[in-house]
Amino acid sequence: MSGKRCADYGIAVGRMEKGPLDKITDVPGVTVGHATIRDGRHNTGVTVIMPCEDNMFSSKLVAASFVLNGFGKTQGLIQVDELGTLETPIALTNTLNVGLVHDALVTYMAKRCEEDGVTMRSLNPVVGECNDAGLSTIVDRPVTAEHVFAAIESAKKEFEEGGVGAGAGTICHGLKGGIGSASRLLPVGEETFTLGVLVQSNYGGLAELTINGQKVGEEILRRREEEIVQAMDRGSIMMIVATDMPVSDRQLRRILKRCGAGLARLGSYYGHGSGDVMIGFSTANRIPHGHRNEILPMRMVTEETLEAAFRAAAEATEEAVLNSLCAAEDATTPNGRVIEAISKYL
Amino acid sequence: MSGKRCADYGIAVGRMEKGPLDKITDVPGVTVGHATIRDGRHNTGVTVIMPCEDNMFSSKLVAASFVLNGFGKTQGLIQVDELGTLETPIALTNTLNVGLVHDALVTYMAKRCEEDGVTMRSLNPVVGECNDAGLSTIVDRPVTAEHVFAAIESAKKEFEEGGVGAGAGTICHGLKGGIGSASRLLPVGEETFTLGVLVQSNYGGLAELTINGQKVGEEILRRREEEIVQAMDRGSIMMIVATDMPVSDRQLRRILKRCGAGLARLGSYYGHGSGDVMIGFSTANRIPHGHRNEILPMRMVTEETLEAAFRAAAEATEEAVLNSLCAAEDATTPNGRVIEAISKYL
Amino acid sequence: MSGKRCADYGIAVGRMEKGPLDKITDVPGVTVGHATIRDGRHNTGVTVIMPCEDNMFSSKLVAASFVLNGFGKTQGLIQVDELGTLETPIALTNTLNVGLVHDALVTYMAKRCEEDGVTMRSLNPVVGECNDAGLSTIVDRPVTAEHVFAAIESAKKEFEEGGVGAGAGTICHGLKGGIGSASRLLPVGEETFTLGVLVQSNYGGLAELTINGQKVGEEILRRREEEIVQAMDRGSIMMIVATDMPVSDRQLRRILKRCGAGLARLGSYYGHGSGDVMIGFSTANRIPHGHRNEILPMRMVTEETLEAAFRAAAEATEEAVLNSLCAAEDATTPNGRVIEAISKYL
Amino acid sequence: MSGKRCADYGIAVGRMEKGPLDKITDVPGVTVGHATIRDGRHNTGVTVIMPCEDNMFSSKLVAASFVLNGFGKTQGLIQVDELGTLETPIALTNTLNVGLVHDALVTYMAKRCEEDGVTMRSLNPVVGECNDAGLSTIVDRPVTAEHVFAAIESAKKEFEEGGVGAGAGTICHGLKGGIGSASRLLPVGEETFTLGVLVQSNYGGLAELTINGQKVGEEILRRREEEIVQAMDRGSIMMIVATDMPVSDRQLRRILKRCGAGLARLGSYYGHGSGDVMIGFSTANRIPHGHRNEILPMRMVTEETLEAAFRAAAEATEEAVLNSLCAAEDATTPNGRVIEAISKYL
Repeated sequence: MSGKRCADYGIAVGRMEKGPLDKITDVPGVTVGHATIRDGRHNTGVTVIMPCEDNMFSSKLVAASFVLNGFGKTQGLIQVDELGTLETPIALTNTLNVGLVHDALVTYMAKRCEEDGVTMRSLNPVVGECNDAGLSTIVDRPVTAEHVFAAIESAKKEFEEGGVGAGAGTICHGLKGGIGSASRLLPVGEETFTLGVLVQSNYGGLAELTINGQKVGEEILRRREEEIVQAMDRGSIMMIVATDMPVSDRQLRRILKRCGAGLARLGSYYGHGSGDVMIGFSTANRIPHGHRNEILPMRMVTEETLEAAFRAAAEATEEAVLNSLCAAEDATTPNGRVIEAISKYL
Repeated sequence: MSGKRCADYGIAVGRMEKGPLDKITDVPGVTVGHATIRDGRHNTGVTVIMPCEDNMFSSKLVAASFVLNGFGKTQGLIQVDELGTLETPIALTNTLNVGLVHDALVTYMAKRCEEDGVTMRSLNPVVGECNDAGLSTIVDRPVTAEHVFAAIESAKKEFEEGGVGAGAGTICHGLKGGIGSASRLLPVGEETFTLGVLVQSNYGGLAELTINGQKVGEEILRRREEEIVQAMDRGSIMMIVATDMPVSDRQLRRILKRCGAGLARLGSYYGHGSGDVMIGFSTANRIPHGHRNEILPMRMVTEETLEAAFRAAAEATEEAVLNSLCAAEDATTPNGRVIEAISKYL
Repeated sequence: MSGKRCADYGIAVGRMEKGPLDKITDVPGVTVGHATIRDGRHNTGVTVIMPCEDNMFSSKLVAASFVLNGFGKTQGLIQVDELGTLETPIALTNTLNVGLVHDALVTYMAKRCEEDGVTMRSLNPVVGECNDAGLSTIVDRPVTAEHVFAAIESAKKEFEEGGVGAGAGTICHGLKGGIGSASRLLPVGEETFTLGVLVQSNYGGLAELTINGQKVGEEILRRREEEIVQAMDRGSIMMIVATDMPVSDRQLRRILKRCGAGLARLGSYYGHGSGDVMIGFSTANRIPHGHRNEILPMRMVTEETLEAAFRAAAEATEEAVLNSLCAAEDATTPNGRVIEAISKYL
Repeated sequence: MSGKRCADYGIAVGRMEKGPLDKITDVPGVTVGHATIRDGRHNTGVTVIMPCEDNMFSSKLVAASFVLNGFGKTQGLIQVDELGTLETPIALTNTLNVGLVHDALVTYMAKRCEEDGVTMRSLNPVVGECNDAGLSTIVDRPVTAEHVFAAIESAKKEFEEGGVGAGAGTICHGLKGGIGSASRLLPVGEETFTLGVLVQSNYGGLAELTINGQKVGEEILRRREEEIVQAMDRGSIMMIVATDMPVSDRQLRRILKRCGAGLARLGSYYGHGSGDVMIGFSTANRIPHGHRNEILPMRMVTEETLEAAFRAAAEATEEAVLNSLCAAEDATTPNGRVIEAISKYL
């Protein structure tokens, strides 16, 4: 991918301070890995968000979800919502590969728990997806367990953005989308926390694309000498939010809802066909597996303290989508049509 | 009222240990008060659950709700669900008096906050209700602010059950219902917590009434020489749950859902016309009003520790309904029909 | 009020066709009335949306709600969500007057049902609110039943916008807000339906206000020689959506969620203190009260047909807020501070 | 399996009339198939509910879910909830096999859609599960695509109950559980509809088991000379509800909630570890895939008409669990412990 980010094109989003990498991996312990499949017939893959370094099954993370538009196949949310915890990596892939990726996460965690001496008889893998059928022959389900393991192995702080991993085949606002990320700092008293967002961008019509108030989509259509008509907002976007701020699962869900504001500023109205799903976790307040009849000490920010996190979620989502677009390069569909990257128009 | 409880008739529910009063007021700090209106035209009133002694607006309680059947007019739940806190007493009344009782809680809290030197410009009164139109000319809305203040004034540990306060006009399984309560103890390590339930019982058909597996409703119909047919399950039941166990709002909502199991054991299938609403609060982990940019220390039981609280919610709800029936006395509708108490059949 | 709308200042929102009045009252049968209280101590009132001309209790409307931020006191939503119907006018008022306005709706509907020969023993009034404590001495609760009846009496198609009725005391993006409305047309095959939105705008910080991509809020702060800092997004916004498109309650809830996109384009990120609540109804498919053991014929658009309604909800909400700002005039707080209208800056 | 049902032991549940088979397959078009894996190491399998005979992707079924306890891994619910439709068979299996079974449903539907000339680029498989780790070495994930195809092939009206298919390894109230089913008739005016329930029973402690008010679990413990102590209610139960009554997805969700009443009458209080999940569909009002800008005619029962369906859901769930127990035979865990069937105690 191009390695470019929106800042390289002079695009800044909001007024909040960013983390050092301006990625979800600014949250301590979080890493991201990709495995990409790119041949004439497929542009797809898997992206894995590792929420911590240690075993997340024996020491779970506070987690929450918010389904803005449930036209999607994301797995694992009913348990996340019931128990408020995450116990596996979060994997993103294409719509029809959700089952195989789910199974691969079971294999990975079974092996890891065995190595760590942790008894595991049940597991709730969290798998998100976008439909990349435009750029990939989706019915083949080419993502296998090996791709999942490779993505996990390669997880690191300085991960690539654009048309890689689960973003290899996504289309966003009619342009090549993909994986993008951003982060914001959250000072609270003496401490400074971080909130990071990673998106798999695959939603939106070109005519609607708006960047910092500029109707960039309309400009592109004019330069292409195409008509400015509204396309159906199909596709979906996955939004993964990580933070080390000590929040409850309820507070985290409140934060997640604000990702939608970031999308709307880019022109989205959460189209019918677009499964818009937010999943979040906090690395503070780890929750041990089991431990009956015990009381855990926790920390929780006051509700008003969330205000900055709300702004951060909106800003970082908006920027993460822009980074996914700016890092992408042109891609070709199985029948030879080119999906352009935004870069040539900036 | 009769002062009788189900234990006086040899009816025991479950195997868990009860609190000393076997009432919601076994939870430290919780008191309950009634104001009753009983004349030829009305059998109605207000019951108030005081969740703590100090100012609940400046130091809020962790709270949650669960709406099993939303055919009801309970007020205040959207904020309870959003913020996970309770900031007023909980008042119960008849369906059409909800607005006036809401207004009276504003008056009460405004005065109290002024006395306590607390600035209050917004308030979320929580008001539940059942429809007592069978025993009361409901459209008159006879409950006024004075009744609410009187109920608050009279709040105490040893409160009456049966056809008093908001239970004066309720009908449960075709018999005279009313206010009932029960509690269970929850040992966790060295500590022992309490979970208490208070119900305003106004649901169910007589044919369905089942007590510890005995089809008591069918027996009563036979003794009355009436046909055993299913009546519509109209009416509603409010279930208020209090605990001093340190639980999060999400955990509390999980507990609330188990009240429904208690109802089902009595014969309910949550009929269409019965607004079945649970509201709960925990007196642990008080949440200060405001306090921007702060982090609160909290305690939270592990998820598996909830198991006993789940059992307790089911058992205490079942027993609370039975106590509401056993404490009730015959009541007469405005047009002269008698709604019998269960006592003569036990 | 000024009678101005955003179009008078050359501001157009979106590309969809508007209804003839560009107001919620373009939906056949819908009317809106206000009662305004404006004295040195109060700027407040009530606004009533009448969903139809005939008795809405005996012939209910399909309805739904979506609570984007539940930090608010809106009443009646649990029954709307459970049964998918609306059976009263929708009243908007200030936060602490919710109870009295609720009671007034009971009085109004009881009288009306008596006149219409309809038996009514239960009623679910829907009352929304914003906190106008900045411009009004809210604790006085000056809105009485007479104001509610007057608002209902005055309901008409060509209603006023800006600082009237429930908008008399609201503040939006640091400027005088109020009531605003807009509508969009929805052609489906041979038929054309209408979707209209009415807002009570009371949210947002000035620094964030963005109009069609222009950072108007920052410009105003610069002209005022004030610092560009983020205020807390307090206050709330009520969004009422009406349509004559035949939609199910589930589909209507999907439409309501898209109002949030309109807010975000204006700069909102749904701040912690802002209760952002959407309530919608459809005038198609009226639902009779009672009628046991019957099957109703219904019409329902296919899911993909909702796409235009989603765009319409976002566009009309955005424009409705702008109309609320443009129609407003300067207002003065009880202690003499002026809340400016936006007009002087456009 | 034994082929026995609870009626063979003189156990009757409720007063409503049953369908001719007293199974979910009394609903016209519905069939059920199993594939069972039973070797020394495994007792597991897959059960498939086919909701109709024709292509359910091109002509979807109205559907809904209710998650009473989300400690489970059921897949596909966010789309069911968003769109109110089902577009695949419903498969049940063990917890860790959810991914592979999901993938198999994609394969099946892709092939079927190709044969039927239906374009399919996205699919929402619905897969439920219980954890059968007590009787099966779950980490092996022995259920493959071939088992899913075999279960679909074998789907019929007169399907087996007890320890077959996805019920091969389940344990219910400490006894051998499995698949069970029941149905009830719903007369509405001139028409008679059917509501059927199928369960995969894997929840509950033995001490709690109650049959028509008899504390059968305690009796069994006494006969075994074991202590009457409360076990953790682990395990889960999947409840699938089918009907041909014309209901909306909202109405269907209301029906689903009443399954919980059936469980409670058997002694359940919805234990922490028990993922209690209801999924329902109606074969009335089929919804075509796509078809933009169209209006569908629908039929919908009035809300009060649901009353009988509520009773039916509770009764049929209670009886379905009892049928799962009565049809089961003893099973042996991988390490040689016998899980007894209830039959010897009846």
